[in-house]
Amino acid sequence: MSVDKYEKIVDLALRRGFFWPSYEIYGGVSGLYDLGPLGALMKEYIRNLWIEYFVLKHQDMVVMIETPMITPEIVFKASGHLESFTDPIVTCSKCGRVYRADHLVEDVLKVKAEGLSLDELKELIESKNVRCPACGGELSDLRAFNLLFQTNIGPYKQNVAYLRPEAAQGMFTSFKRTYTCMRASLPLGIAQTGRVARNEISPRQGMIRLREFTIMEVEFFFDPEEPGEPNYSRFKGKLKILTAECRRKDCREPIVVDPEEAVKERIVLNPWLAYWMLVAQAFVKELGVNEDEVVFEEKLPEERAHYSKQTFDQLVKISRWGWVEVSGHAYRTDYDLSRHMTYSGQDLTVFKEFPEPKEVTVKKVVVDKAIIGKLFKEKASEVINAVIYADVLKIEEALKNKSNEVVVGGYSIPSEAIKIVEVRERVSGRKFIPHVVEPSFGAERLVLVALDKAYVEEADRTYLKLPPKIAPYKLAVFPLVTREPLVSLARKIYRDCVEAKLTVIYDESGSIGRRYARADEIGVPFAVTVDYQSVEDSTVTIRLRDTKEQFRIKADEVVGWVRKQLERL
Amino acid sequence: MSVDKYEKIVDLALRRGFFWPSYEIYGGVSGLYDLGPLGALMKEYIRNLWIEYFVLKHQDMVVMIETPMITPEIVFKASGHLESFTDPIVTCSKCGRVYRADHLVEDVLKVKAEGLSLDELKELIESKNVRCPACGGELSDLRAFNLLFQTNIGPYKQNVAYLRPEAAQGMFTSFKRTYTCMRASLPLGIAQTGRVARNEISPRQGMIRLREFTIMEVEFFFDPEEPGEPNYSRFKGKLKILTAECRRKDCREPIVVDPEEAVKERIVLNPWLAYWMLVAQAFVKELGVNEDEVVFEEKLPEERAHYSKQTFDQLVKISRWGWVEVSGHAYRTDYDLSRHMTYSGQDLTVFKEFPEPKEVTVKKVVVDKAIIGKLFKEKASEVINAVIYADVLKIEEALKNKSNEVVVGGYSIPSEAIKIVEVRERVSGRKFIPHVVEPSFGAERLVLVALDKAYVEEADRTYLKLPPKIAPYKLAVFPLVTREPLVSLARKIYRDCVEAKLTVIYDESGSIGRRYARADEIGVPFAVTVDYQSVEDSTVTIRLRDTKEQFRIKADEVVGWVRKQLERL
Repeated sequence: MSVDKYEKIVDLALRRGFFWPSYEIYGGVSGLYDLGPLGALMKEYIRNLWIEYFVLKHQDMVVMIETPMITPEIVFKASGHLESFTDPIVTCSKCGRVYRADHLVEDVLKVKAEGLSLDELKELIESKNVRCPACGGELSDLRAFNLLFQTNIGPYKQNVAYLRPEAAQGMFTSFKRTYTCMRASLPLGIAQTGRVARNEISPRQGMIRLREFTIMEVEFFFDPEEPGEPNYSRFKGKLKILTAECRRKDCREPIVVDPEEAVKERIVLNPWLAYWMLVAQAFVKELGVNEDEVVFEEKLPEERAHYSKQTFDQLVKISRWGWVEVSGHAYRTDYDLSRHMTYSGQDLTVFKEFPEPKEVTVKKVVVDKAIIGKLFKEKASEVINAVIYADVLKIEEALKNKSNEVVVGGYSIPSEAIKIVEVRERVSGRKFIPHVVEPSFGAERLVLVALDKAYVEEADRTYLKLPPKIAPYKLAVFPLVTREPLVSLARKIYRDCVEAKLTVIYDESGSIGRRYARADEIGVPFAVTVDYQSVEDSTVTIRLRDTKEQFRIKADEVVGWVRKQLERL
Repeated sequence: MSVDKYEKIVDLALRRGFFWPSYEIYGGVSGLYDLGPLGALMKEYIRNLWIEYFVLKHQDMVVMIETPMITPEIVFKASGHLESFTDPIVTCSKCGRVYRADHLVEDVLKVKAEGLSLDELKELIESKNVRCPACGGELSDLRAFNLLFQTNIGPYKQNVAYLRPEAAQGMFTSFKRTYTCMRASLPLGIAQTGRVARNEISPRQGMIRLREFTIMEVEFFFDPEEPGEPNYSRFKGKLKILTAECRRKDCREPIVVDPEEAVKERIVLNPWLAYWMLVAQAFVKELGVNEDEVVFEEKLPEERAHYSKQTFDQLVKISRWGWVEVSGHAYRTDYDLSRHMTYSGQDLTVFKEFPEPKEVTVKKVVVDKAIIGKLFKEKASEVINAVIYADVLKIEEALKNKSNEVVVGGYSIPSEAIKIVEVRERVSGRKFIPHVVEPSFGAERLVLVALDKAYVEEADRTYLKLPPKIAPYKLAVFPLVTREPLVSLARKIYRDCVEAKLTVIYDESGSIGRRYARADEIGVPFAVTVDYQSVEDSTVTIRLRDTKEQFRIKADEVVGWVRKQLERL
């Protein structure tokens, strides 16, 4: 049944124009999909809702920016993506086919293999004699494949660049500029929607796993020592959380907890992470997903991205694919800003003034530049930056633990080159690197999830019970018969709606029943029919999609009525 | 003066957050810019207006879709971009610097060089001994550099792909699917907004020449034999056109002509091209550009893209850069669809039923597959497709003109392999390839143009007279002093506006004059001040940005009043 439903949705999507594989006339490219006329409108409305929830409702602390997809190499060196954003691949030495190694091992050996190291995968493939499923050839060249799409900027080969796999780095590299423009106050959220690209090895999950999609992301910067109190009460509801601890024990029973409580009990590591999870849940509810259909799954350490200290995925169950992630919530700490400080040599800290200046003892790192220079040569300044911007306490700790060298920003530095000194200083405030939590959505997947939740088959009809706010068309206008003055009257209502910037369908072909059916099938929430009575008393029939209920209103009140419904529902 | 103004705008943009160079902390990348918080909102509103003008107002015949940036190689082979989307470059054999050859020749020799062939450029460089301006080295390796950003899809090196330089090919490759979903009627416009990338050799014009930007484009498909009559009267105004003929004579005096007239007199080659130019002009007017500041410049044949039969650029004059293109209007004919038919082997024609079936004599091309097979081997089916889908009349013409071979779709085919026969057929309709006109905008450039038009310096203040519809913030709310109950009252108005999805600023720091100045500088059209009288009679002061006019309205009418202004202005 559930497989059937998915296939019916895909068929509907192709036939009526929600989505379809890109470049179909050339056989398509797996992982690339177009949004058709209906899907593009739905995505537009979903994106508007996202902006409403994540930006407009929070405009006292969240702003939107837009940064390019094309990103110079240094940014992903700094962010760690060049090193860590990889999947293991293995090549058949006979036919040349390339497989994602962990998935292949899982398919063939029926064991869990995600997160295994290259060595562990190699050992498994060799010991169990896993071979190419297509030709039986021997597998070789097991290696990490970087999922960044690579390109070059300008005519110089050495100017390597990548397409961003997340919008986040644009917000980090422009954090200081944005922060300054926004009059230097924290917390500050920087939001962005835009395309990202991930060079998946062989995506085979339709609209679920795309090589290019629209991300909707907030990087929310706050003072880790005084994060501030989110106003949880603006969004009602509790969080259903499946903790990592629980998952380790193979339990699938989530706990239901008040977000504030979840922070107090250290289930969620900081208040803003919990707050944005609550907002994310409220937003998803607007797409037709109820709270009780949602669960926040905490990722296990080996499942987390390299930059995250704690991650929750908001999961929703849909047909065919089961539980799918609709949003990711990562506590990125100061990881990204610290790394960009090291790699750029720019000071990305913020300064918070004390009410009164204080006389304090501060610890400082003193670096022996001569030693560093001799040892690291052209990299010396990078290393010095790394040390200067690193957390003094962490370095002190490291010096205590290990006698001869300290690792800072990935560099092993001999202990003799680093000294910690205490100085008395009159300071007027505190300098620190903000911490970050990130709620992140994929827009196209939300289109699919909303369609899945909306698809209803009844004995006599199929319809999409899409929430009016995200329905591609808000109204359908029908003259009962194709005769004057009915047609003119209907066309006038149509034009009024167009003038009011509503998306609206005008349809005069076929029986009225068939026209209702066509509109139902694509989720048009309201229909207006102009009939003979309309000519007499200037009223028209409104018909509601979900209940088939019908009633009459004044023809010149149609626009206002629809607008009111859209604000209400 | 005009240079100054531009610099002031750039300074304002950086300081307040309209735009700034991307990846600044790493020294930036030329041709890549971020939109900051204010610019991103402005772009959002400009894009909304574009959607209103090009999609919503025309929703009976225009739909929107969304297709990926990443595009497989075959698409750009078919579209001609692999061959033709190039600029000439030349490399210094001493220092390795790469230059755009025509620009270098223009700079050094002070002659017009755009559009010259590689041979002509080579001849000029050699005969005039043009050398590297940086080091004086000899220039070598003059060649065509393709402006497509190249990448690979998946782990196979042979899966070459490119980032789209225009959205158009997504609409062409998905034309048939979209046309079918939209119940197979013409004319049909397919609109798209999204990022595109052009690997410019060394862009040095700030926000004017970007390597990645947001395109807003319509491909408008129509029957070339019965294009239909656009409703010109929906958009008032005449077109100011600088024809190619006139430009050849070095004349800069445009003619002013009614769009319908322009079509009749064959100044504009078809009605839809003229119609969308009219819409484009009306849209640009909403950004604060008057009709009399706009001119449509017809491109000379050597300036036109390879796919265009006639092109007009809508130009607007701004400070520093002079006349800049804000939209391009190309008559792409059936070029793209024909090419995709040839390369994909798919039938992309549409069928138009006659009122009655007819008995007609039709000419058909008969291909000798044996000859083609022997001659073209693995390319044979491509060649056969090219012939079958080509215009019979054109082939007949070619056969008449040249005795031994005919060129179809770029292939030279011996005449003996092609025969034209006449057959009597009962046909129920006509099959044809739709023609296309394309209006195309760059969103980021419009942000700059609107800022340029809005920037006003008066004796005592600087402000942006941005049209309220595209102003980043619609309202500023100030308590006269930071005291209760003024603050609470002001905050309530702020919250009401947020609830109504208006972008709004709350500001309580500094004198009221300074707050007005800060809001003026970023073009906030309306400000509300809560003062002591507000406590007594629940009225507040509205202050208009452009006139500094002030008047009082009821506090609880602020939201409604602002909304009304936004619909009106």
